[in-house]
Amino acid sequence: MNQEQLIVTMALQAWETQIKRADQLFNALTDEQLLQEIAPGKNRVIYLIGHLAAVHDAMNTILGLGDRQYPLYDEIFLKSPDKAVAAPSVHEVRAAWHEVNKTLAERFATVSPSDWFKRHTRMTDEDFAKEPYRNKLSVLLNRTSHVAYHLGQGVLVKNR
Amino acid sequence: MNQEQLIVTMALQAWETQIKRADQLFNALTDEQLLQEIAPGKNRVIYLIGHLAAVHDAMNTILGLGDRQYPLYDEIFLKSPDKAVAAPSVHEVRAAWHEVNKTLAERFATVSPSDWFKRHTRMTDEDFAKEPYRNKLSVLLNRTSHVAYHLGQGVLVKNR
Repeated sequence: MNQEQLIVTMALQAWETQIKRADQLFNALTDEQLLQEIAPGKNRVIYLIGHLAAVHDAMNTILGLGDRQYPLYDEIFLKSPDKAVAAPSVHEVRAAWHEVNKTLAERFATVSPSDWFKRHTRMTDEDFAKEPYRNKLSVLLNRTSHVAYHLGQGVLVKNR
Repeated sequence: MNQEQLIVTMALQAWETQIKRADQLFNALTDEQLLQEIAPGKNRVIYLIGHLAAVHDAMNTILGLGDRQYPLYDEIFLKSPDKAVAAPSVHEVRAAWHEVNKTLAERFATVSPSDWFKRHTRMTDEDFAKEPYRNKLSVLLNRTSHVAYHLGQGVLVKNR
């Protein structure tokens, strides 16, 4: 394993670890718990899951992996706060979460190690020449912390 | 910048981003807010900060950077749940958080890019030969997500 493969393996493992933990949490929570707020007056768990699904779905575009599956989720789970617009059912949001991550995993497997070090679609060639660390892999690292951030919130409805 | 330097820069930036966000949050919260629970019956913010300080302080040992500064925090913020034992004052915990991260930043600056790819002190040479991605850099990636996890919780006491 050369160093390029090694670092991509590390970053993908860090991502998969957070996805797996989130999976375990969301699977352990009942539909009723998903409709509970993480703290009084704060987002419900279903909103966090839809929000994560929307952000992960958008990674397809940013990383140039292919078409998105849930573009309508942006309006509900990114541009609107929780409860402002009607959300899809718990069943549907659970399915979207799984579907989006399954597709990403399949597409990640087709990205070569060296491709992770190339620019993502939100960077111009000019900016990328100046800041080569703002590559596809940096998007993955950033989104990994983003899952962890909301995982720390979702876990609060457990054992309540 | 070669690829080794590039990836270390990326990982350190991801770490610094989370530390900066946590700094901004903790500085914005009053001493009273630090004594509030993140959700009813859950940890207080002061416990999260002490917990993060203890985990970060322990990175000195795991990464072979030098002596720890707050070994006594393990008993209070790692081995005991919140409120089980008397915690240091808010003032003291705030100072520990800053001190630990300042020391880590200084010591990180002395680690060469290639050193980040070496084994950490909790891995044997034998295990490391089999799993070379379990290196010092993987500890940094893991702890970055850990900050994000608790940051997502601490933010819940804001604008309450």
